[in-house]
This record gives sequence, C-alpha cells and structure tokens, in this order.
Amino acid sequence: MNNYDEALEIIKREFREIKLLTEEHDLYDAIDRVIAEDITADIDLPPFDNSAVDGYAISYSNKNEWKIIGEVSAGNYQTYQLKPEDAVLITTGSKIPITTDTVIPIEDVEVDGSILRLKKNVIIEKGMNIRPKGNDLQKNQIAVQKFTKIDSKVISVLASCGIEKAKVFRKLQTAILATGDELIPVNEKPTEDKIRVSNIYSLYAAVKELNQSPISLGFIKDSKELLQQKIKEVLDTNVDLLITTGGVSVGKYDYLKEIFNEVGVVEKFWKVNIKPGKPIYFGVYSKNNSKKLVFGLPGNPVSSLVTFNIFIKPAIEYLYKLKTINSINAILNNDLKKKDGKRHFLRGILEQEGSEWKVISKFSQSSGNLVEMSKANCLIEIVEEKRNLSKGDNVKCILI
Amino acid sequence: MNNYDEALEIIKREFREIKLLTEEHDLYDAIDRVIAEDITADIDLPPFDNSAVDGYAISYSNKNEWKIIGEVSAGNYQTYQLKPEDAVLITTGSKIPITTDTVIPIEDVEVDGSILRLKKNVIIEKGMNIRPKGNDLQKNQIAVQKFTKIDSKVISVLASCGIEKAKVFRKLQTAILATGDELIPVNEKPTEDKIRVSNIYSLYAAVKELNQSPISLGFIKDSKELLQQKIKEVLDTNVDLLITTGGVSVGKYDYLKEIFNEVGVVEKFWKVNIKPGKPIYFGVYSKNNSKKLVFGLPGNPVSSLVTFNIFIKPAIEYLYKLKTINSINAILNNDLKKKDGKRHFLRGILEQEGSEWKVISKFSQSSGNLVEMSKANCLIEIVEEKRNLSKGDNVKCILI
Repeated sequence: MNNYDEALEIIKREFREIKLLTEEHDLYDAIDRVIAEDITADIDLPPFDNSAVDGYAISYSNKNEWKIIGEVSAGNYQTYQLKPEDAVLITTGSKIPITTDTVIPIEDVEVDGSILRLKKNVIIEKGMNIRPKGNDLQKNQIAVQKFTKIDSKVISVLASCGIEKAKVFRKLQTAILATGDELIPVNEKPTEDKIRVSNIYSLYAAVKELNQSPISLGFIKDSKELLQQKIKEVLDTNVDLLITTGGVSVGKYDYLKEIFNEVGVVEKFWKVNIKPGKPIYFGVYSKNNSKKLVFGLPGNPVSSLVTFNIFIKPAIEYLYKLKTINSINAILNNDLKKKDGKRHFLRGILEQEGSEWKVISKFSQSSGNLVEMSKANCLIEIVEEKRNLSKGDNVKCILI
Repeated sequence: MNNYDEALEIIKREFREIKLLTEEHDLYDAIDRVIAEDITADIDLPPFDNSAVDGYAISYSNKNEWKIIGEVSAGNYQTYQLKPEDAVLITTGSKIPITTDTVIPIEDVEVDGSILRLKKNVIIEKGMNIRPKGNDLQKNQIAVQKFTKIDSKVISVLASCGIEKAKVFRKLQTAILATGDELIPVNEKPTEDKIRVSNIYSLYAAVKELNQSPISLGFIKDSKELLQQKIKEVLDTNVDLLITTGGVSVGKYDYLKEIFNEVGVVEKFWKVNIKPGKPIYFGVYSKNNSKKLVFGLPGNPVSSLVTFNIFIKPAIEYLYKLKTINSINAILNNDLKKKDGKRHFLRGILEQEGSEWKVISKFSQSSGNLVEMSKANCLIEIVEEKRNLSKGDNVKCILI
C-alpha cells in the first residue's frame, strides 16, 4: 500500500501528461483563468515620466519659494516653459513638464495665492517623486508570465499591455458520479438505511472552487451492469477527469475497481495508508492519444471531500503551477489521539490569536460527520511516524 | 481627516443599513452564495446507527473468534439474527444489525474462510466504531446558520437536510466607472500623456472575487456635464454600490466630489490618512427608502485596487458576516522606510519558510507600479504611530 507522498507523486506524474488545451476570452471573461502564454509589454510602462504624488513640479535648486504658473493634470499635458523660480501644480500620474525634474508633495508646501513655499524642515531631493518612463516595465519585457492566474491584480497589467482577449487554458472537464445502493435523491426522505446523496454536491462545488468545469452525472445504484455501461459512456466523452464516489471498499457490491479494469482503465494505485480515505483508487484511461484520469473516491461524504482536497486539489494546482497559500502552521489547542502508522487528516478550526495561529480539533473525527466538516476550515495533517499529539504541538493545517 | 479605523467604521455603519434582498437557487447554482436563513435538520443525521469503519459487527463479549455469517453493505440492510459467536462483514456507513453493538475494524482481524480472529494484542471496546443515529445532528437542530457561505463543505449538509433550493442573499449590484482625461481604451496605443484604462478591469475582477455582481460602465472623460449626467443615470438604476475611480484629487478637473454633492450624494468622508489612497471619497445616496453607497477611489490603478481591498472588501465581508482568513502575521525580510504618520499599505510577497511566515517587500512602492502589484500577494499594514521598520520585525499582512 502506498503512503500519501508516494500516491500524490503518482497522481502528479499523470497530471504532467495532460495536454492542456487553450481558448481565447475577452478580458472580463478571462477572470480567474490561467494565462496560456507569456505576455510582453508592447509599450514602456509607464509610457512617460510622471508624478508619483499630487504636488508641484519644479526644476531642482536651493530655493524654498516658487511662483505657481499653471497646472498639469492627468491627460491634460501642456507645454510649460518654466523658469527656475516657477512651479506647476501636478496631479498623480500626470506627465512631468519638460523643464522640471522634481516634484514636491502638496503636504510639504504652503500656498499663498500664487506663491508656493516649502514648509519648515522639509528637505527636497533632486528627482524626487518622479516615476520615469519604463520604470515598471520596458517595452518587450515579459509583463505577465504563462501560468499566471488572471486575478484583480494581474488583469490591469494585461489591460495596460493592450490585451483585449486573453489566451487561457481550457478548464478540465470533470465528471462526477456517485455510486451506492444507500443513496436517494435530495428531495426524498430517507427510510431504513438510505441517505440523501450529498457528495456529488460537495465535489461539484470543490471542482468549481478550483475554477474547473464540474459535470454532475448524479448517482447510480450498485448494479454492475448499469455501472459498467455508465463508466464506458463517460470515458467515451471528452472529459479530462472522472471522479466517482463509493464502490471501492471491501463490500460485495464494491464493483468499481473491477469495472475500471474491465473497461480498460489502468490502475495506478488502490488504497493509500491514510485516514480517512484509505480505499481511494486512481487509474488512467488512454484512448486516441489522450488520457483521462480516473479517481475512485470513498463513498463516505467526508472521506470523499477530504481525499479531493489532499489529492486532486494539489494535483490541479500543480498542473497549472499555481502558487496559492494552501497551508498554515499552527499551535494545537487540544490533545489528539493517533494510534496507527497512517497519515491522518483531521478536521480543525484555525484561528489567529494576535500574531499566533492556533487550531482547535475537538471534533469526534468520526469520518462521517458532515456537520463538523462544514464548520472546519482546515485539515490537520499528522504524518505516519507521529502518534498522539499534545496541546501546544506545532501542526500543519491544510486550508479547505 | 479621518484615520483608517475611523473611515472603515463609517463605511461599516452604512453597510449595516443595506437591506439585503434574497433569492432562491437550485443547490448547484447556490455555490459560493451566502445562505439567508437558518437551515434545520428535517431528520436525524445520521438517520440510523451505522458503522464508522469497514469491519465486522459483533455483539461485545470476551471472545476473540467468531463465525462470519453474512454481510451488510450500505443500502443493503438485512435483518440478521446473530448469536454471540456470529459476526457480519459491514462496510463504512452501513446500518448496524440489531443484535450487534460493536464493530471491529478489518485491520484488527484475520479471516480464515468463515472464521474471524482478533489479531494479537488488539483490544476491543464495547460500542466501538458505531456512529449512533442523530450523533452529528438531531432532527430540528440548526444544521447551517444564516450567513454561512455555501462552499464544498456546507453544501453537503444542505443536501443531507433535503434542501433542493437554497434561499440566498442577492449579490450587490456594483457599478464601476473610471474617469479621467488620460484614459484610452485597451485596444488603442498610448500617445503623449495617455494610458490604457486598467482599473475598471481590476475592480471588476475584485468585485467578482467577492462573489458580487460587477457592472462595468467603462470610462468617461473629465467633462463635468458628461460626468454629472452619467452619475445621475447610474444612481437612478438599481445598483447597490457605485465605485468610481479618479477625479477626487486636487487637480482642476477633479470634479467628482462636487458632482456627488450636486446630485444629492451625502459625503461621509473625503480623504483618509493613509498611503496609498489618501483622496478616497465615501458618500451615501438615499432615494425611495433605499440607500446606495458611493465610493470615489483614486484614479491611480494601484491606489484604487489597494483602497478596494482595505475598505470595500472588509465592508462586504462584514455585511455578510463572512469569516475568512484575511491576514497573516509575518517576519519582515527587509527594512522598510516610513517617515510620516499615515497608515501605510505596502505591497509584499508572503512566503512560508518551515513553520514561519516571512514577507518580502523590496518593491519601489511607487503607488503606480502595477507590475509589482501584480506579483504581490499581500499588503503590509503599518499603523500611524510606527515609523521605519527593520528586517525581523513582525508585521500584519493583509491577503490580496
């Protein structure tokens, strides 16, 4: 049985083989997508010398008094011939008049009619508060690197470089299928040993949270024939990932592993030395020179969401080379039991106290407790060789 | 001039007055939305006593050997009459047979045909590995509280409670208008002192990142007439927020404050003792018993995005009572200059080194540097009374 690190490495190896397709979108529609090419600046940024502050442009000297002869505001440049004793009011971002070289911030001066005076004890330096042309980026330099996510910070650089349409990576088409005789639709009331299907919803949301395309296939009973037909059908479509839940454990109706094998999915691993989520299956289906990755997650809704977060999420982030803050180290606020050599992922609540992070995990940690899972904001990762942890120990918390 | 804390408090006070409308959506379409009512469980969760592990259900005794007489898997409950020496294979989540009270995990047993034996040194406890009916939540208890964001963890609780359609808060209709004579469209090439409009894109993305509805109004030149007409027009629509950029500074074309006043927006503050973003304007427009909040952000693209992040984002999170991790304390990796009594928000790159967070801020911190802003992942907040900071100091980093 693989341990966690080995299993994740096997998954990443297969993600590396995915051929990422690209598509073009108008800039507004490209938000949250990952850019598929380096973007170079087609102009100098900024395109002209400009003022970094609201202030007065002057030609540097030892003077402390000037005459205000005009104003330059953004987009309203006009040529002033400034004498050494002249100053012009200039607003942030406005082009610097040619005969000036220094901008004094408005906070540092007193204005008396058209007379400008330096405040006491203010020292000015030649060239201050000028952002020279090309200071941020020179023409033909790379402005945004391939594999950058287009967020609120990046999009303005793209706009500044004249990018109206962005070439981005296509989202992974991710089919989600729940299996299990215990499942009933949300709008029915459970009787005997049935439960409402819930893991397709959480996995659908989880895929969406990663800006990929979830496709809900609903749920299907543990009938070998129906299951096989459905799986075949899905693998014949253009999905990139197939995520199933249930049917990979030890029960007599746990057909999925068998079916995957029969329809031609090559098993990469089954079972990982973790808790929860041990019976997870991973395989690869190849056809017509393209690969589909198949994840058989456990049927338990908490286990399926935990395994999504510790296997599929990091693999997708790896695929798109995303640099997201995805874990925080924290001080454990209570003792935690661990008796075995598995890697554990316990639901916790992470909070900042002053400059310190602490994490509480007073949950029963029953792998089925959805309500507790819904209140958690992290998974406390405890590696194989560790056993019981004590209050005060430092632990790694994976943000969920 | 207000300081940052005062200004934010004024904004929050007005956000408290916003009447949040609600709407209903199918569960899949309600992802990332904030739920507008308490959801109670209509059944016990779990609905029946079930096994927390894959294992063998027995009636507790001192025995260490049993006879396997059958199997219960999820959704396939059948009534077994177990004698004290009998055991049944049971999978995680399956209903516990009535005559049993304990489940031994499969890892702790050896199976020899139909004979089940406890492994050496394994101690079993009565009642172990059983999740009792109603253990997670009892019928009529609150399952999901009003003002909870429907994410991948919460949605499965809603599904389990039979919620097909969720009542959620309507998104804030947020109009964004850039102003400035310096602005040209993205598809044109800047000449003289023009720049491509970029802040409408970053604000649009920022509004979207908060799961609200951005409406781009494009940009408009610094013409008082045109501006006044446009602002009037927007305030007559059903927008909740109006965000403008530019026109609130000290230049002669900085009409916006005047126009807001003329069309009936009541000024709550103008200028805050911060850097960047000092000339920010905030006002309220009331009509027909409804209020629209008006933010006049500075025209500089970095300043507008910074002020969005430090004023509008926290106010929206406050409105929806969202508990998001939005700052991390870190060790400063370089010296930082600060000479004035403003509150500074400097762009930084936050990284985790082992269990410690460090933040690098080697940027020029020119408020215009979009490229540097695009590479930052946090704003280092330095309060008014602090001056120069040294490498090794602990600083608060607001995640952006």
